[in-house]
Amino acid sequence: MEALGRTLAEDVVSSIDSPPFDKALMDGYAVRSADLAVDGGISLQVIEEVTAGRVPSRALEPGTATRIMTGAPIPEGCDAVVVIERTTFDEATQRMSTDMRLKPGSNVLRRAASVAVGQRVLPAGRVLRAQELGGLAELGVSQVPVRRRPRVAVLATGDELVPVEATPGPGQIRNSNETMLCGQIVQAGGIPVPLGVAKDERDELRAKIQQGLAADVLLLTGGVSAGKLDLVPSELEAAGVRQVFHKVEVKPGKPVWFGVRERGEEGQGTQGAPSRTLGANNCFVFGLPGNPVSSLVCFELFARTALRRLMGVEPAEPQPVRARLEQPHVARGDRPTYHPARLSWSETGPTVRTVRWHGSSDLCGTLEANAMALFPAGDADYASGSVVDVFLW
Amino acid sequence: MEALGRTLAEDVVSSIDSPPFDKALMDGYAVRSADLAVDGGISLQVIEEVTAGRVPSRALEPGTATRIMTGAPIPEGCDAVVVIERTTFDEATQRMSTDMRLKPGSNVLRRAASVAVGQRVLPAGRVLRAQELGGLAELGVSQVPVRRRPRVAVLATGDELVPVEATPGPGQIRNSNETMLCGQIVQAGGIPVPLGVAKDERDELRAKIQQGLAADVLLLTGGVSAGKLDLVPSELEAAGVRQVFHKVEVKPGKPVWFGVRERGEEGQGTQGAPSRTLGANNCFVFGLPGNPVSSLVCFELFARTALRRLMGVEPAEPQPVRARLEQPHVARGDRPTYHPARLSWSETGPTVRTVRWHGSSDLCGTLEANAMALFPAGDADYASGSVVDVFLW
Repeated sequence: MEALGRTLAEDVVSSIDSPPFDKALMDGYAVRSADLAVDGGISLQVIEEVTAGRVPSRALEPGTATRIMTGAPIPEGCDAVVVIERTTFDEATQRMSTDMRLKPGSNVLRRAASVAVGQRVLPAGRVLRAQELGGLAELGVSQVPVRRRPRVAVLATGDELVPVEATPGPGQIRNSNETMLCGQIVQAGGIPVPLGVAKDERDELRAKIQQGLAADVLLLTGGVSAGKLDLVPSELEAAGVRQVFHKVEVKPGKPVWFGVRERGEEGQGTQGAPSRTLGANNCFVFGLPGNPVSSLVCFELFARTALRRLMGVEPAEPQPVRARLEQPHVARGDRPTYHPARLSWSETGPTVRTVRWHGSSDLCGTLEANAMALFPAGDADYASGSVVDVFLW
Repeated sequence: MEALGRTLAEDVVSSIDSPPFDKALMDGYAVRSADLAVDGGISLQVIEEVTAGRVPSRALEPGTATRIMTGAPIPEGCDAVVVIERTTFDEATQRMSTDMRLKPGSNVLRRAASVAVGQRVLPAGRVLRAQELGGLAELGVSQVPVRRRPRVAVLATGDELVPVEATPGPGQIRNSNETMLCGQIVQAGGIPVPLGVAKDERDELRAKIQQGLAADVLLLTGGVSAGKLDLVPSELEAAGVRQVFHKVEVKPGKPVWFGVRERGEEGQGTQGAPSRTLGANNCFVFGLPGNPVSSLVCFELFARTALRRLMGVEPAEPQPVRARLEQPHVARGDRPTYHPARLSWSETGPTVRTVRWHGSSDLCGTLEANAMALFPAGDADYASGSVVDVFLW
């Protein structure tokens, strides 16, 4: 059970056949199908009853049948099972009658039909859901090697931030991003490592960044826009984090920053190592904007995708649901906008409405939302019924 | 963080305004919008700089501006913020110039615009996701009452079953259903209570059923079809479980059984009690067919829906994705069939293919599947590209 939701680290090969014997798929009578190939029905001598967990002791001779239950091994000579509902049984003579005709193999599952010895049952990289655990249990595999979950450090930056338990003074607000991002990390399958708040001050920021770079992924919030005290990009660069991109044409979240801290050569050349070691030991660093909805959206678009990729979960990218607008929507702006929205399921398919929302600092405005609706860049008036891409949160 | 994924038991009402002050939404200059209403641009005296976490000490007079950062409180007299990118600053004169014109309120979020004191932020019954935790953190709510998770007992029946760790003897198989169902219960948000195996024997079955009825939901597997030793329905009836239905026109899973054990009057009349006490203290009992894929599918269709309903999660029912068949599919039979299938996401929308599958006892055959595709009752040949309802696992 501890493997549930984890990613398999190695192929699983079956050491047994499943089913381990030719088995009945229905309650009824094990027969020789050739015996039934007569007009007007047939009567067969019932020689034995095999219940689940027992095995037949007698082979079927022509003209005989064995009472059998779902899951039980079929007797030698049997090649089909007549379902009980299509038979009658005479207690006095111990004879079964039926007018069914069956092809060989009917209602029988042959040994190894599901899985054969030596067959690869699950490939490395598979996320283990309930049915994988069930399949492994069937094969007697009660322990499997799994990939570790990525550790994701969360560092909020900003002089205005106080812990959630504190009462903010004038000009201060609570560090709600840490709570939110830790929740998103758990939802995405990672292990959150909250680092608290770094003030807008180089020494403190530097020390906390070093702490965060020990994780597989480091999420910072705040300090990446054009403000005078936005120290994050320069401090990340000083810590050896190579910038991959800064600023994306997206709303909210334009200032988002992404870079990689490479940790040397070890593991890099080894085949398969990148996936097993979660990105060849590198640390992936996201500088998320400080406004909570920008952080929320950028996590969903960028960080969550990275986490899923690190864990080998496909598809890694957010998958859109195509939904019809319940109301008209006025889109304005020069960037693609992910607008908080409420996705509903109706008889005629998914529908969506955008929620009242004051912009990227209005997290509570998104609480009525369960999704974000994507409106491409440009000014456009969407009529009710227009189809848009919606991404579930 | 412990509330993540749980259901809120009471409304949450805010005890504060959010934001707690009129705040700047962008880095730039706090201004009086009326000052900008001139042709050819304007120059304003910069009287102060307010960084995040600080508060302004001076009110804006006509002709003045305050340098301000995202999230900082705006000074008295200010009704708009000019973004820094649209300004120039002269160090010598400490004057800012801009040719922007702004409406009052531009780039400003008014106190309480997101949430006002006394406003209901979250309703009872809401499932707490990352953004709810973030919203609660913003308001200083670090503890909330949540509904308890339903306890779901799992009882596998059948003489043929041995524990996963055991090596099955002739005619025996491992109890893979328990592992699988416990995984499905966790995935659905419940707490699994595995009860092991009950042999096809009345006394043992009766004792284990009594144990299971102490849970909120009891799932049995096996013993519900027409076989001679299918004791489950009669023993459930003897235990006071009122049958609601037995047998459903569905494939796999036709023999599925459902009933309710009522535990008396307590809590029944109380308004709101049924949801808080998870079904007014009743035990909901599902007799799932013993074949693993039947159990899997019936859990998804029936038990998961019941668990979500008990937890107040909407929508409770499985939600279909409409997907195009990648290959033709031949459907045969007199019942609606939920066929194991592989759902993929392409540029042009979701597509699906049915997987090779030997029927309800072939759990390993479903391991390539991530969904089930629904084919209505009746014989039909589906062409490639036909659209079918698909339910993700």
